[in-house]
Amino acid sequence: MKFGVLGTGVVGRTLSEKLAALGHDVTMGTRNVEAALARTEPDRFGGPPLGEWLAAQEAVQLGTFEQAAAAGDVIINAVAGTASLDALRAAGAENLSGKVLVDISNPLGFTPGEPMTLAVCNDDSLAEQIQRAFPEARVVKTLNTVTARLMVEPGLVPGEHSVFVSGDDTDAKAQVVRLLEDEFGWNSVIDLGDLTTARSAEMFLPLWLNLMMVQGTPLFNVQIVK
Amino acid sequence: MKFGVLGTGVVGRTLSEKLAALGHDVTMGTRNVEAALARTEPDRFGGPPLGEWLAAQEAVQLGTFEQAAAAGDVIINAVAGTASLDALRAAGAENLSGKVLVDISNPLGFTPGEPMTLAVCNDDSLAEQIQRAFPEARVVKTLNTVTARLMVEPGLVPGEHSVFVSGDDTDAKAQVVRLLEDEFGWNSVIDLGDLTTARSAEMFLPLWLNLMMVQGTPLFNVQIVK
Repeated sequence: MKFGVLGTGVVGRTLSEKLAALGHDVTMGTRNVEAALARTEPDRFGGPPLGEWLAAQEAVQLGTFEQAAAAGDVIINAVAGTASLDALRAAGAENLSGKVLVDISNPLGFTPGEPMTLAVCNDDSLAEQIQRAFPEARVVKTLNTVTARLMVEPGLVPGEHSVFVSGDDTDAKAQVVRLLEDEFGWNSVIDLGDLTTARSAEMFLPLWLNLMMVQGTPLFNVQIVK
Repeated sequence: MKFGVLGTGVVGRTLSEKLAALGHDVTMGTRNVEAALARTEPDRFGGPPLGEWLAAQEAVQLGTFEQAAAAGDVIINAVAGTASLDALRAAGAENLSGKVLVDISNPLGFTPGEPMTLAVCNDDSLAEQIQRAFPEARVVKTLNTVTARLMVEPGLVPGEHSVFVSGDDTDAKAQVVRLLEDEFGWNSVIDLGDLTTARSAEMFLPLWLNLMMVQGTPLFNVQIVK
């Protein structure tokens, strides 16, 4: 399958590498290819500069947001939450129309010295904003509740633990569930319901961040027990 | 120990019954004692009218919010979230001063036909509103992430699963942790940090509600796995 992965940060890289390793065609999208490749400093998570990382990824192509979206049959939004709508506009509505758009971003807002807040929450969500802006895309929210490495390798945390999916398009959601289960190896995918339920998955992030602080690692997840 | 439990709904009743069974003195508080006892219809969760329920609880007293707060060394806010500040004002700042105030309420707002929202969230929480309104109370947020029966009987869900505590007063928080562990039987109490972390516990509620819908029962909880 052909994937267009928007965003070249740790989430975009982790997903692209995994999808390529699984044999898929992957095009990563960034705003400005030349500028992105010209960077020589480590990225903000301490990873190698994009060009260096990309040189080791034979099966991953780099293009603009527009080129990546045009190349993909499935589009993954791995851009920072507050930059997502801009990136998707650059990708172009015509390149998203009719396609499954997997939104794994969180609308995190940071103010130095203040607890993290969400740029949208409660009566709306980033996923719904994206769906309203691109009504012909088939938006599915998922994977935003776990750290990047765990998204594509859930076995890094032993036992059963869950990710969630939200979306209005049943077929698109089923396709994403197959990707999560059959390709990434998730053993518990919980369908929360329509896209309004993405609010609850996004509003989990403050608790996730506090739990990460308490536990000293992002490599954890929640199991639902009953 | 002497407990003042504000609120006579399912949460207030469940906690009062458990605390009395553990040998504590419990005074439940309500706005208007006569009106509360005059009701003959089942409560809104299908439980018996308050007078009938109370007749079976030899060790639980009923009083006004003010009487309950005055009688308790530890105060528990089990009033509906959006009514909590009013109830605490009726209880009286002088009856809360210096006391541990356990806030287990959620600021849920319901609009018919719309997904549930929170009346306060993101850059503030009900717990912080209460702390600001009653600066001499020692507010600890906890238990708001599980259903009432599970609060006092965590073994209803097998295995290890967690509740959270948030608060600015370390001694008050330690006292509440002892209550949770030694008296209610919790085996995993996670200290999220200061009272601003109550935001994250309150913002978990939308996900909790969606999970309750999906699973068809409120008798579940989250386990943190790593």
